[in-house]
Amino acid sequence: MTLSHKALGFTLALVSLGAICPPADAEEGMWTFDNLPLKLLRQKYGFTPTQAWLDHLRLSCVRLNDGGSGSFVSAHGLLLTNHHVARGQLQKNSTKEQDYIRDGFYAARPEAEMKSPDLEVNVLQSMENVTPHVAAALQGAKTPEEEFAKRRAAIADIERESLRKTGLRSDVVTLYQGGEYWLYRYRKYTDVRLVFAPEEQAAFFGGDPDNFTYPRHDIDMALFRVYDNGKPLDTRDYLRWNAQGAKDEELVFVAGHPGSTSRMDTLAQLEVERDFTTPGLLKMLRHRIATLRRYSALGAEQAREAGSDIFGMENSVKALDGRLKGLLDKDVWDTKRKQEEAFRALVMANPQSKAAYGGAWDQIAQAEKKAATRSKERWFHSTGSDLLGLANNIVQYVAEVKKPDAQRLPGFHEAQLESLRYEMFSPAPIYPGLEIAKIAGQLEQDIAEMGPNDPYIKILLDGRGPNEVAQALIKGTKVGDPEFRKQLVEGGEAAVAASGDPMIALARKLDPLRREFTKWMEDNVQSVEQRAGEQIGKARFAAYGKDAYPDATFTLRLSYGQVKGYPMNGTQAPSKTTFYGLYDRAQSFDFRGPWYLPSRYKEGKDKLDLSTPLDFVTTNDIIGGNSGSPVVNRAGEIVGLVFDGNIESLVGDFVYEGETNRTVAVHTAAMTEVLRKLYNAPALLKELLEP
Amino acid sequence: MTLSHKALGFTLALVSLGAICPPADAEEGMWTFDNLPLKLLRQKYGFTPTQAWLDHLRLSCVRLNDGGSGSFVSAHGLLLTNHHVARGQLQKNSTKEQDYIRDGFYAARPEAEMKSPDLEVNVLQSMENVTPHVAAALQGAKTPEEEFAKRRAAIADIERESLRKTGLRSDVVTLYQGGEYWLYRYRKYTDVRLVFAPEEQAAFFGGDPDNFTYPRHDIDMALFRVYDNGKPLDTRDYLRWNAQGAKDEELVFVAGHPGSTSRMDTLAQLEVERDFTTPGLLKMLRHRIATLRRYSALGAEQAREAGSDIFGMENSVKALDGRLKGLLDKDVWDTKRKQEEAFRALVMANPQSKAAYGGAWDQIAQAEKKAATRSKERWFHSTGSDLLGLANNIVQYVAEVKKPDAQRLPGFHEAQLESLRYEMFSPAPIYPGLEIAKIAGQLEQDIAEMGPNDPYIKILLDGRGPNEVAQALIKGTKVGDPEFRKQLVEGGEAAVAASGDPMIALARKLDPLRREFTKWMEDNVQSVEQRAGEQIGKARFAAYGKDAYPDATFTLRLSYGQVKGYPMNGTQAPSKTTFYGLYDRAQSFDFRGPWYLPSRYKEGKDKLDLSTPLDFVTTNDIIGGNSGSPVVNRAGEIVGLVFDGNIESLVGDFVYEGETNRTVAVHTAAMTEVLRKLYNAPALLKELLEP
Repeated sequence: MTLSHKALGFTLALVSLGAICPPADAEEGMWTFDNLPLKLLRQKYGFTPTQAWLDHLRLSCVRLNDGGSGSFVSAHGLLLTNHHVARGQLQKNSTKEQDYIRDGFYAARPEAEMKSPDLEVNVLQSMENVTPHVAAALQGAKTPEEEFAKRRAAIADIERESLRKTGLRSDVVTLYQGGEYWLYRYRKYTDVRLVFAPEEQAAFFGGDPDNFTYPRHDIDMALFRVYDNGKPLDTRDYLRWNAQGAKDEELVFVAGHPGSTSRMDTLAQLEVERDFTTPGLLKMLRHRIATLRRYSALGAEQAREAGSDIFGMENSVKALDGRLKGLLDKDVWDTKRKQEEAFRALVMANPQSKAAYGGAWDQIAQAEKKAATRSKERWFHSTGSDLLGLANNIVQYVAEVKKPDAQRLPGFHEAQLESLRYEMFSPAPIYPGLEIAKIAGQLEQDIAEMGPNDPYIKILLDGRGPNEVAQALIKGTKVGDPEFRKQLVEGGEAAVAASGDPMIALARKLDPLRREFTKWMEDNVQSVEQRAGEQIGKARFAAYGKDAYPDATFTLRLSYGQVKGYPMNGTQAPSKTTFYGLYDRAQSFDFRGPWYLPSRYKEGKDKLDLSTPLDFVTTNDIIGGNSGSPVVNRAGEIVGLVFDGNIESLVGDFVYEGETNRTVAVHTAAMTEVLRKLYNAPALLKELLEP
Repeated sequence: MTLSHKALGFTLALVSLGAICPPADAEEGMWTFDNLPLKLLRQKYGFTPTQAWLDHLRLSCVRLNDGGSGSFVSAHGLLLTNHHVARGQLQKNSTKEQDYIRDGFYAARPEAEMKSPDLEVNVLQSMENVTPHVAAALQGAKTPEEEFAKRRAAIADIERESLRKTGLRSDVVTLYQGGEYWLYRYRKYTDVRLVFAPEEQAAFFGGDPDNFTYPRHDIDMALFRVYDNGKPLDTRDYLRWNAQGAKDEELVFVAGHPGSTSRMDTLAQLEVERDFTTPGLLKMLRHRIATLRRYSALGAEQAREAGSDIFGMENSVKALDGRLKGLLDKDVWDTKRKQEEAFRALVMANPQSKAAYGGAWDQIAQAEKKAATRSKERWFHSTGSDLLGLANNIVQYVAEVKKPDAQRLPGFHEAQLESLRYEMFSPAPIYPGLEIAKIAGQLEQDIAEMGPNDPYIKILLDGRGPNEVAQALIKGTKVGDPEFRKQLVEGGEAAVAASGDPMIALARKLDPLRREFTKWMEDNVQSVEQRAGEQIGKARFAAYGKDAYPDATFTLRLSYGQVKGYPMNGTQAPSKTTFYGLYDRAQSFDFRGPWYLPSRYKEGKDKLDLSTPLDFVTTNDIIGGNSGSPVVNRAGEIVGLVFDGNIESLVGDFVYEGETNRTVAVHTAAMTEVLRKLYNAPALLKELLEP
């Protein structure tokens, strides 16, 4: 599945600058809506979308701050996304007594629709190129550090002014490694209620083993309803439901929010990714999974509490494993090397471009060398504790908001505060037992990796053992109470400084170290790489024009492709699976392990037309974050729901391999079939199918 | 699927001598019945087969001269094998009007059972170690050539004497690269009648794409009945039919006739395989397939005629491709290198063994260098014509049988003549149009590869173009008539010398060149490698004892293993598939191409219990030639029918990779289900199920 890593609370690539390259394959590309490959589309498919078609699609698509994508599928705010995107909210609404993840959920009447504790939904209203504004602000800056500060200030200004003027969420997005800066404005919704979710075993049949593989058999869907002023959102911009679903070989589009790619990274950046960043992250995640599995073994409730964390981490491990395999693949590496060498040769061949851009690669290489020296701190100066994360935020929040906007730490700029506060004051449950297990487990690894004399570790331990630390922190803190957090934030610096809460006290002690690390990375890595990245971005435009798409940035993109099988395991993977395949796989494993089926499915088999298409694959170019994206046909109707990339697509972080890279989606025919035959949901079906 | 390459009329490895190695994995090994891994079996599974258990199994198993294996499954001579093993006989019995391959066959009454034109079935009666006899015969030989002649003479003597004494087919088998020679005696049956075959699309669902892949969904079965003296064979040695079939994780045995492996080959031999033999053969086969596809495109009858040749060649190409990938795999190569280096170091560490065996590897390497110089002739001094093959045999036959047995060409020894005549006088149809296409197509490639001035090619062309040659030969010859062949053979050398038949005339002209090549290979390669191989074989016994199995030799072997899934494509392949999976895959491809289903299956779906196991996988170690082998449980009952190795097993020619190497078999439950529900075959079922 293709959840953005954002869902795990971290971004994968600290820096993601580099050289852009023209698409190697006709169906490659996650295109911004302002720069679509219209010529290719016309030549290959004889299709040219109108502006109205594009605007309607854009306004029908949403971004979910839980790390995924979605789309409106009715005039009354019905929002379709994946079960695994909705999963965080399902977890937060579940209790020991009522497990919506395991059992699913259906609100037959509006009153039963279930509010999401901290889900934010964004709809992109406009895009504006602000590259000249940012460039103007950099005038006169002498050092990379000075440039960095001015760039940050300029961006904060643009965002703040836009918010003030329009009331819309306003984000400046860095595209083409700084070749362009764009202001994206979003309408934001926070009253988002759950309408329908199937049982986890229907949504995530096959579990972690089947994750990222195809042929696949998942109903990975969920339906929310967006409310506006306490009423279902009334919208003309929604995708008509095509219950026949996608057809073999037809042209389809995916509109969604791919999280991040590193296709334009320089070789030096990829080397650090390969040798330090990804292996370190994998090590950390594997240890955390082991910790959570031990916790889960304590009982059914513990297993429920840890379920979504394990789910997310296993998903990341599998994705990162594929990513690392890609980085270690000789062919991939040769391709990247050739691209970079050709591009650099082109830049160096012209004295002017050589002078302006020629030094960028070596500057990045130097910065990456430095970054590598502190790469371990990114993973092993951590506890995995949600409560410490909140405490850290509170401690920094009260200090940052007093500063001029331009000088604040990233994340605390004026335009970002509303969403930040929404997250900080979320009423979502935090499980004390799970927190203790996480902290104790991660501290053990931290000590093993960094040594007990590491300053960060010393503060955390304070002479005690990991378990003792974890117990003391969690038993003593009130940070789990949203009201307590609000009081602290409202009390400002004084209240935070005076607080005797052990978690707040710890966050205060860690704060200087965290700031030092951020500053060091900015001065030594980010400032250098942003400047060099901008140079490479410009060099790329100069050399190749703008027939390219930027690396993914968790902003709205359009990809096009075909419903199409591919060569696999010595044979051909079909373009679609059917419900026969679901029952085959369940029966093949005797309904054991991750292949058991909810009784609704096991006993309801004869109600279904087993020949109904279930999941299908397309050649569209996507990446984590695209989860929940609609698959749309020429008519702009929804014909599928993206939930995964195949395992062959994991190298897609670096290169798009058109022969085998596939998007995996749930067929609308399958969703229609189960809603009609298994879930007894006539009202919902009527809403989806009404013209 | 795992048809022996013998079925294609050639053997893959001209020489197959080398060093033997101990099994790397507990379930590795194709063991001879005289030297089973009883200790491993006892330790791992707590099972020790009795001698009666082993004798019963051995006598229940058969070898089919079409290149496969089989077993008796009733007291009345009912013989179970694969559809793809029976396919040759189905083809030979089919006509333009009645296509038994496409439509299947079922004889509801004994009178309807259909005689096979040239099928020979062997049942292994006894095994006798004749190593001392062969060794004694070699005494006093000075050169490898002299040794070679004496060895050949000794083997011919042993076989002839055994046949005379016992009346049983008698073959001396070279095991452990000449470390041992064994006399195998077989009861031979040639009255073998077809009882049942499903439609090709049920037996070979998924066609060439799905061939060798798993999960798989084939009913690759056929039933013959062996007759003795015009009556169904009455036998106590048959396998009881277990209609429940194999269970997950249970211990199972495969008894059958693996064709050939190269696990003990030296690195020098593998290099020639990798660089010359396999690539050359692949080139030839791909060209032949293209030729036959063009012929097939001419019409339905042409497609029927060429069907089985295409089938066999595509099967070989896929197997050889996997084999070549194995040879090109760095890990495989490193493993082989380490094994050989360790073994050679052991031999060289002891002055005596160094003197006796130390030179063997270099001698083989020298011989292989020579062999490589003429490797192309093996593939491109050919026409692919069945009629020329028969003519060649006739021309050599009449000359060879006049010589003392010891001096004859291989294949013409006294003990081999009966089977040879059975094949030579087969009434099986040979299609003139297909023959013309084959000859013309192969000649084109021969010319391209060898040049028009190559002596062999010059004789074939005689100043004409490929098509002209083919037309003249086929339109002028009577070799297609079995009576004509008999007359020539009965007329002896004089009749053959006097014949004006163009095919016979051509065979006469080619004969000296063919003899020269055989002699050159014997003198320069085989004689050297047989001697060196014997040395290495002895060195291996001296170094490691006899806890090993010999390379496969298309003789009876036992392998043991477990019913077990495996890691695949990022997830787990289940240990079995079900009928749900069959309908899923058919529906996934909209019943198109090789995934269409016969109407009996398409329309009969509701008669079946779709949850019935269909195919399954085991860790047993097999190779081409094992097709049709029974899978047997501890009780000696048949629980499955081997028809394939998975694609991961193709490297099995060189190494057994226990984690992913799997045998693929049809579940007895599936065969029972279709016979009962789809084929209306109560008599057959009763015979299978009777106690």
